Amino acid sequence: MTSTPPLALTQGDPAGIGPEITLRAWIDGRAGPPFFVLSDPALYEAAASRLGLDVPVRATSPEEAASVFPDALPVVPLGIPVSAAPGRPDPATAAATILSIDRAVALVREGRAAAIVTNPIAKHVLYEAGFAHPGHTEYLAALAAEPGEPAPMPVMMIWSEGLAVVPVTIHVALREVPALLTADLIVETARIVAHDLATRFGIAAPRLALAGLNPHAGEGGAMGTEDRDIVAPAIERLRAEGIAASGPHPADTLFHPRARERYDVALAMYHDQALIPIKTIAFDEGVNVTLGLPFIRTSPDHGTAFDIAGRGLARADSLGAAIGLAGRLAARAAAR
Amino acid sequence: MTSTPPLALTQGDPAGIGPEITLRAWIDGRAGPPFFVLSDPALYEAAASRLGLDVPVRATSPEEAASVFPDALPVVPLGIPVSAAPGRPDPATAAATILSIDRAVALVREGRAAAIVTNPIAKHVLYEAGFAHPGHTEYLAALAAEPGEPAPMPVMMIWSEGLAVVPVTIHVALREVPALLTADLIVETARIVAHDLATRFGIAAPRLALAGLNPHAGEGGAMGTEDRDIVAPAIERLRAEGIAASGPHPADTLFHPRARERYDVALAMYHDQALIPIKTIAFDEGVNVTLGLPFIRTSPDHGTAFDIAGRGLARADSLGAAIGLAGRLAARAAAR
Repeated sequence: MTSTPPLALTQGDPAGIGPEITLRAWIDGRAGPPFFVLSDPALYEAAASRLGLDVPVRATSPEEAASVFPDALPVVPLGIPVSAAPGRPDPATAAATILSIDRAVALVREGRAAAIVTNPIAKHVLYEAGFAHPGHTEYLAALAAEPGEPAPMPVMMIWSEGLAVVPVTIHVALREVPALLTADLIVETARIVAHDLATRFGIAAPRLALAGLNPHAGEGGAMGTEDRDIVAPAIERLRAEGIAASGPHPADTLFHPRARERYDVALAMYHDQALIPIKTIAFDEGVNVTLGLPFIRTSPDHGTAFDIAGRGLARADSLGAAIGLAGRLAARAAAR
Repeated sequence: MTSTPPLALTQGDPAGIGPEITLRAWIDGRAGPPFFVLSDPALYEAAASRLGLDVPVRATSPEEAASVFPDALPVVPLGIPVSAAPGRPDPATAAATILSIDRAVALVREGRAAAIVTNPIAKHVLYEAGFAHPGHTEYLAALAAEPGEPAPMPVMMIWSEGLAVVPVTIHVALREVPALLTADLIVETARIVAHDLATRFGIAAPRLALAGLNPHAGEGGAMGTEDRDIVAPAIERLRAEGIAASGPHPADTLFHPRARERYDVALAMYHDQALIPIKTIAFDEGVNVTLGLPFIRTSPDHGTAFDIAGRGLARADSLGAAIGLAGRLAARAAAR
């Protein structure tokens, strides 16, 4: 039996809730998959002391992290000192935040980490330090590119035990959604979802339910033509490729418990259509999973929460769920 | 002590699930508020016989209905014979469907019924018979108009025990929503909601939570300007009038259990933003309540369901919830 390497957690913005939820995830998760965090041990010692958490912190290597894990939070040092005042983001920490991501990708590609779990970053802090990528996920995709090849298309799935959703368009104004929605975009997104659910999640023939863009999925064109002219043809193309795609479904009838039994993942046409249902039923436990990358990456489904950082209020449920899911996916990948 | 008159149920489309859910609501609801249905007794006798339901049906008057109710389904005859093949809508029944609505409004305005609970209609069936109103609710508003006055503005609220939502725009294509959304529309809708929650629902200072139109409520204009330029100013105007309005809130964070404790009703900017959360958590129990009318009107939150009519599959949960809520609102109105 091959032992699965530990998970690599990134540091995230050190002034956000990342350090404290990492400490809490270690307290809550010692029965779960072992992980290490790529950062500066002093950051976690300071956070534990500030919050009165009894968490030993130990500098270690990826190879030793699993044996350290039962007794202490393993930190693989970046070689850069990192300190932060909770709630006060500082562009001076951006280099370490980015280096932590770079190292995590390098380690997972070398087989020294089984998967990446990212703590939240604040884009505006990184931008001030010269970061030039649209976001966390796009940066990971850029790091995942093979030399001379374009970056793979990353697909955001929000996953919980009872529901998984993928928004086809994401962080754009609602008025821009209809023009951005094309059959090609839906088909390319759905292909990646179907592929990764099969290969990573072990669902042999994943069932994809596609929501309509318009109320009642447009009622045959009476309330918007996109469902008839864009979504429905995309579904036909997917079916022709052997993907079990259904819809366009009226979005409001797609997320109650009986409806959720009929599919493995719902594809929504825009941000809130996907995020409203999953945050309604799994606000604290949602996990952001990036599909389409050559490695496993999960993330808590929330941001840096500077407003509550350092006050002992942050919940580690979502990070814990992200670690749990990454561990399950890594174990499945190792068993294949 | 004044006795509250019974509730008036309309017939709805006789080929839909209306007759069978009315029978089931009587079976399930004999401990609840008494009601009568405005139709032809033979329609319910035939439906009970077809479905094997042991429901005595008795022709009666509004005044006698409450004493009939414990022993039989009270039907106040329209004086028109109504028969229907389940699942086969027939424009020949449209006159009775419309007359049932007209009589219900007349009875509630005369004080002979305490509230109206409408069974689902199919607009296309009524259109074939010459019906010229955009929908059920607009027709009720037209009937509610005082002589020489314009019809009141009806506002649709979907209500359940744990969540009430009001979509500010409703049955329009998503691409049309941004242009239709004005501060005036939001303010007028919210005023009616605040007024009726206070007067009909007995919530002294109702708390209204307004969702943003865009993801993350636009992030200060980075993802759409409507939240900053339309929704936020509308909220300021409402607050200046003394209405406890909050927002614009990111819609995906507004509907989990802890968030729902912070308001009495959520105003959504479009159909699915309102209907997704409530149908996710209360698919069978949602009640459509029309605010802004001079009488109480509730309705189940579903349509005629011709596809399952007559087969004994229809659930009466939503009609039962609509009857229960109408009864509570009527009792409150009578106690004032």
